[in-house]
Amino acid sequence: MPITTESWAEQVRAGEVRAISRAVTAIENREPEGEKLLRELFPHTGKAYRVGVTGAPGTGKSTLVDKLAAHYRGQKKTVGIIAVDPSSPFTGGAILGDRVRMQGHATDAGIFIRSMATRGSLGGLAQATSDTALLLDAAGKEFVLVETVGVGQGEIEIVRLADCTLVVLVPGMGDDVQNLKAGLMEIADIFVLNKCDREGADRFEEQLRAILAIAPERGGWHPPVVRTIATENRGISELAREIERFRQHTSGPENRRAREIELWKQRLVELLEQRLIERVTRAGIDEAALASLAERIANRETDPYSAVNEILAKAGIGESK
Amino acid sequence: MPITTESWAEQVRAGEVRAISRAVTAIENREPEGEKLLRELFPHTGKAYRVGVTGAPGTGKSTLVDKLAAHYRGQKKTVGIIAVDPSSPFTGGAILGDRVRMQGHATDAGIFIRSMATRGSLGGLAQATSDTALLLDAAGKEFVLVETVGVGQGEIEIVRLADCTLVVLVPGMGDDVQNLKAGLMEIADIFVLNKCDREGADRFEEQLRAILAIAPERGGWHPPVVRTIATENRGISELAREIERFRQHTSGPENRRAREIELWKQRLVELLEQRLIERVTRAGIDEAALASLAERIANRETDPYSAVNEILAKAGIGESK
Repeated sequence: MPITTESWAEQVRAGEVRAISRAVTAIENREPEGEKLLRELFPHTGKAYRVGVTGAPGTGKSTLVDKLAAHYRGQKKTVGIIAVDPSSPFTGGAILGDRVRMQGHATDAGIFIRSMATRGSLGGLAQATSDTALLLDAAGKEFVLVETVGVGQGEIEIVRLADCTLVVLVPGMGDDVQNLKAGLMEIADIFVLNKCDREGADRFEEQLRAILAIAPERGGWHPPVVRTIATENRGISELAREIERFRQHTSGPENRRAREIELWKQRLVELLEQRLIERVTRAGIDEAALASLAERIANRETDPYSAVNEILAKAGIGESK
Repeated sequence: MPITTESWAEQVRAGEVRAISRAVTAIENREPEGEKLLRELFPHTGKAYRVGVTGAPGTGKSTLVDKLAAHYRGQKKTVGIIAVDPSSPFTGGAILGDRVRMQGHATDAGIFIRSMATRGSLGGLAQATSDTALLLDAAGKEFVLVETVGVGQGEIEIVRLADCTLVVLVPGMGDDVQNLKAGLMEIADIFVLNKCDREGADRFEEQLRAILAIAPERGGWHPPVVRTIATENRGISELAREIERFRQHTSGPENRRAREIELWKQRLVELLEQRLIERVTRAGIDEAALASLAERIANRETDPYSAVNEILAKAGIGESK
């Protein structure tokens, strides 16, 4: 059934769950309609507050995100949740997970949950996550919570889109403070010490605070450490309070703006790269064609630089110089 | 002083250190001459055996690589070393480090050492490392050792170009076996347990072997664990023996070929992305222009998708569809 992008956009803006779901799918599959829709919705974005939540597997991120969402819902705020799983190759299981999680918020139209898993490259996932966050923003969600496993560069790209980033740690998980990856230390606006009733929590917090005390401050902000037991809903309102405090701290016009401009610069470069690849694919240079070129290179029948020029010429993007 | 690419290529092939050094610099700076040179040298590549060495900072990778190089030199094999440091923003210190390391191999013309540090994106570094490996290959180095800190996605890209990948671990460095990043486990063809005289080495090795025993085998190869004390030159010949065993194991024509074709496919995509960015930069869309577009997006005066189309049009790569 054909539907105009205009009315689709209106449905999304009205927060209609089906329209949003279809839009996320269009974005994930990179359907041209998805981009048209995003273009139309874009002027209505920029209002949502995006909270990124990252941490190792088993730190209780999902539960924490659910409780935080429930807290915001209790304040009559609308919430969108994007659960990104870069390790899962397809969404089958993830979608099932959505349904299970949605039951907790059963008939609540003020909340939207969507899982995204890797399709192809991590870069594509970061792009799809960013676009979905825009979509939920346009759909009027006041908070967009983006949850992802913190393991590599790709996931750091994913939380980079957030206005505020939570790093979730659990004491005694082999997560010795010394082992904290430098990348995680740098992106954390707030540390969440979840399952803080576990043994060793005090010592862990002490060590963490010792490191934070000597870490260079960023823009006058010292990342706080919030202790939670998400399963028992403990520490959640304190966490929400710290998020709000960070929001106030960074709401100075120059601060937030500088961050947003930097983000869009990076996105533009990523979008550009993606465009070229799409262009090349459309010119008929598919996996098989690439494989055959790669084979010729492996045989030393051609070299990679000439091969690339050949592809560019075929795609009508030949050297103009 | 103008010099033809032909004679430059000949000098590189003859293994002349100055010609090789200049070529690496040209590659690092993405000078057009560098690519011309690589294109000319490419048919003479594919003979070197590339060994990637990765591990956390402080595992003694450099010493291990030096000793392994010395071992090969003792067998009259020529060796090239590329030491990649993605965390270092410029090469000043790295180049100094080269000189210090070179002294160990003072007047030996059979060895070439070069450090590379991040200039801009990690992607660019992987490309430069790959091109430098090709260069040393063309220069007749029988072994090219690529050493990099194993922390993120970018470094995994760097060692991916290797024919054989060593993951260096040290017992008791907080490197609990459970903490080993999945990425590192997957890329290791051989595990090196360096500083194996440290306490806890036996337990560490035991745990590692227990995990490896249940890990899925890849192409009939079970990654061995080699114990070394690089500073005392212990375990180095055992390591060389395991590398040789892996080389034999993967030397079946279909095996090595499949791996090489896969690698070239990925390189082609990376080269393509790089080309577009260069093309865009040449069209005058520099940092400032990107920043100004990003600002207009942040102001919601335009949207990212239209902005990208604008850039493409300016670069003469507008939509043909």
